Amino acid sequence: MNLEDIASGPLVLINFKTYLEATGKLAVELSRKIAEVGRKSGIKVGVAPQFCDISHVAAQEDVLVFSQHVDAIEPGAFTGHILAESLKAAGASGVLLNHSERMIRLNEVQRAVNRSRELGLLTVICAGNADLAAAASLMKPDMVAIEPPELIGSGRAVSKEKPEVIENSVRKIRAVNNSVRILCGAGISTGEDVYAALKLGAQGILVASGVIKAPNPAQVVADFCEAARRFDESS
Amino acid sequence: MNLEDIASGPLVLINFKTYLEATGKLAVELSRKIAEVGRKSGIKVGVAPQFCDISHVAAQEDVLVFSQHVDAIEPGAFTGHILAESLKAAGASGVLLNHSERMIRLNEVQRAVNRSRELGLLTVICAGNADLAAAASLMKPDMVAIEPPELIGSGRAVSKEKPEVIENSVRKIRAVNNSVRILCGAGISTGEDVYAALKLGAQGILVASGVIKAPNPAQVVADFCEAARRFDESS
Amino acid sequence: MNLEDIASGPLVLINFKTYLEATGKLAVELSRKIAEVGRKSGIKVGVAPQFCDISHVAAQEDVLVFSQHVDAIEPGAFTGHILAESLKAAGASGVLLNHSERMIRLNEVQRAVNRSRELGLLTVICAGNADLAAAASLMKPDMVAIEPPELIGSGRAVSKEKPEVIENSVRKIRAVNNSVRILCGAGISTGEDVYAALKLGAQGILVASGVIKAPNPAQVVADFCEAARRFDESS
Amino acid sequence: MNLEDIASGPLVLINFKTYLEATGKLAVELSRKIAEVGRKSGIKVGVAPQFCDISHVAAQEDVLVFSQHVDAIEPGAFTGHILAESLKAAGASGVLLNHSERMIRLNEVQRAVNRSRELGLLTVICAGNADLAAAASLMKPDMVAIEPPELIGSGRAVSKEKPEVIENSVRKIRAVNNSVRILCGAGISTGEDVYAALKLGAQGILVASGVIKAPNPAQVVADFCEAARRFDESS
Repeated sequence: MNLEDIASGPLVLINFKTYLEATGKLAVELSRKIAEVGRKSGIKVGVAPQFCDISHVAAQEDVLVFSQHVDAIEPGAFTGHILAESLKAAGASGVLLNHSERMIRLNEVQRAVNRSRELGLLTVICAGNADLAAAASLMKPDMVAIEPPELIGSGRAVSKEKPEVIENSVRKIRAVNNSVRILCGAGISTGEDVYAALKLGAQGILVASGVIKAPNPAQVVADFCEAARRFDESS
Repeated sequence: MNLEDIASGPLVLINFKTYLEATGKLAVELSRKIAEVGRKSGIKVGVAPQFCDISHVAAQEDVLVFSQHVDAIEPGAFTGHILAESLKAAGASGVLLNHSERMIRLNEVQRAVNRSRELGLLTVICAGNADLAAAASLMKPDMVAIEPPELIGSGRAVSKEKPEVIENSVRKIRAVNNSVRILCGAGISTGEDVYAALKLGAQGILVASGVIKAPNPAQVVADFCEAARRFDESS
Repeated sequence: MNLEDIASGPLVLINFKTYLEATGKLAVELSRKIAEVGRKSGIKVGVAPQFCDISHVAAQEDVLVFSQHVDAIEPGAFTGHILAESLKAAGASGVLLNHSERMIRLNEVQRAVNRSRELGLLTVICAGNADLAAAASLMKPDMVAIEPPELIGSGRAVSKEKPEVIENSVRKIRAVNNSVRILCGAGISTGEDVYAALKLGAQGILVASGVIKAPNPAQVVADFCEAARRFDESS
Repeated sequence: MNLEDIASGPLVLINFKTYLEATGKLAVELSRKIAEVGRKSGIKVGVAPQFCDISHVAAQEDVLVFSQHVDAIEPGAFTGHILAESLKAAGASGVLLNHSERMIRLNEVQRAVNRSRELGLLTVICAGNADLAAAASLMKPDMVAIEPPELIGSGRAVSKEKPEVIENSVRKIRAVNNSVRILCGAGISTGEDVYAALKLGAQGILVASGVIKAPNPAQVVADFCEAARRFDESS
């Protein structure tokens, strides 16, 4: 998938976290199915597996692979850190930054975005509310993802429970950055949630347990993609 | 390599850190050469590549693969963390913990050792001096590695510059733990350094820049293994 | 109170945390009452107020004042850190280290103990279980405090709910350190809890909500001191 | 000093860090002299002493007292943390946040600003460059302080060495926040440096070693205030 492609059409991005259901071979298998759903639907899909799984997942076609984190470091003596060059070599196309489960300092966000850009890695900065999302947008990432922490993993979708969070975020982000793409996350579990998010001004969604913990993850992604396609055609 | 093997004979363990010379394909290539040196010399060798490279490095025979870190977590919602199950699935045999460039809290050391043991991963806790090494030994890891931080990357070997640190550490560790294997590191760059370390009571060495930054890393490892073999035969 | 005094007789140490009931003037008032209880009972009492309150609390006689934390730093450019010299100048007699709500890295524990000793500050390292307490004891603090994190603030006393934790800790600590004094904490709320702790081999207790959140904190401390006196006389 | 006062005229804010020259009684003595200089010059001065010294320093008139940090917490079980209520009770008028020696996560910056505002504490967010300063401004603090980390403690003033950093910062901050006051820091050591900073659009300066490590700190502050007064009259 060409990186420029993300500039058109919604993105469905699935964070594998450290769920056992999405670790090792299961990560590769799940990515294969998600890629297939994406291919069929024509909607761009991405996955964020654990570091050890990136290279095998990236061997799949038609799926963007994001790292769940990158450290704001140069190559060198940094035992146990995540080096952007290593992610690139493994086949990652992008990185998540500042997820609510892996938050980093403001200046590290900036340096990690800059290091990623140097290597041609897409960046998604996560933020818990509208002001944080606007601040994140000033770091010039490719995308920001708005995820109210209290809804993460709740099954109550931000796009339905707190539509004003998304509307406010879109407004505040656009006041300072016209080009950053806006994802929304937290609690997304149905195609309706996805449709609502896109209607509120998001260009994609970030989801984890809503897919990984579902009885049939590929079916859930298919529902998401179908909703995204429906929105795309209507707009 | 059988994990029980580490109980007999010295171990030469090479930390790849986030050096560009040991990232991606270069990590695999370097591991291949190191494995070959180990095979020829009959000395056990191990490598600690970056997370993304573990699975490809672990495809090599005759080399133990260590992760540079593991988080003290269970599977679940921990975006951007290092899960023991993920390391195991990628083929790691063990983990480094508390390296001076990735230090963790005392209780995290304990939990990370316990989680690793549950999964059959060998543990090496790094410590900067004798008392810390003794405290680390109470966490019941398989190995402790003594590395005075001021000598790391210095080219001045702990076994020559501060032999008393190793002697003290061996004495203090043995006062509280009879079975843990003791590695020593920091500044090791020649076979003589390795021989001196083993003579002082270490059962192996932990090294990084002394190998990775050398003009001919495989030759350095061969010198280390030769010194280790010589010591082994003389003892 | 002379620092050598802590070597004889049990210590009742009360952590004020950041409870509003023990902030500012309320901290000074509470300390005055606790000092009075200690004076009357003949039992040594200590308090650990917030940093801003140390100097005013330390103006009380007959109460040892502990800081809730100290950073492992020398004087210099460390904005927002806790310098041992500053605690000493404010009148503190000692410091808590590695409380479960403010855990630090293993090497920082050691350096903070050493820095405190340089300045004549008593040290209490907190630890959540027997092995951690033994490891902490190797850092040569004046005291260790065993507090199973799951019982902190629970109202269920470690000395009653998990007596084996204290017994194990005493045994494991004494195997490596004969002179460190052992406090126990977590869930202590009655004189009986205190008596039980001392009977199990502790030389004092560390308590917070059991006192601060009680309707009559001074009365609770009086009950603790009475139980400690009773134990002291019987032994 | 009335808090509204900071809205008019430049502010000279002096960070005491954990310098021994500004610890305990020396902190109080230095603050007294600084207050006197401020009073004579008619320029607003502020100091940021260590936590333990806040209450005694705040007993001085005519000097604003800032804490060097505050944690993003509510009152409760947070041993070793800095509670806004405690700072307020000690007499602080404001807080520094995210100093380069005590950086915090983006969401903590926001919550710490909000907690401080609830209690009527002024907020100064430190930032190392123009984009970070603009992002910080979106958190709606009372002030932002631009301090390129490479110049901190260097004796080379940002206002002379990197005037473009201040100009860019002012421009980028004003694009998103019209009312936040802008301080500049790093390397300031002469009245000329102060004048240059104000001329570039700053409303005050943040300084540490340039004052604390000077042979005659009060004289340096007097020079700063004189330069500020001169600028104020000319504008």
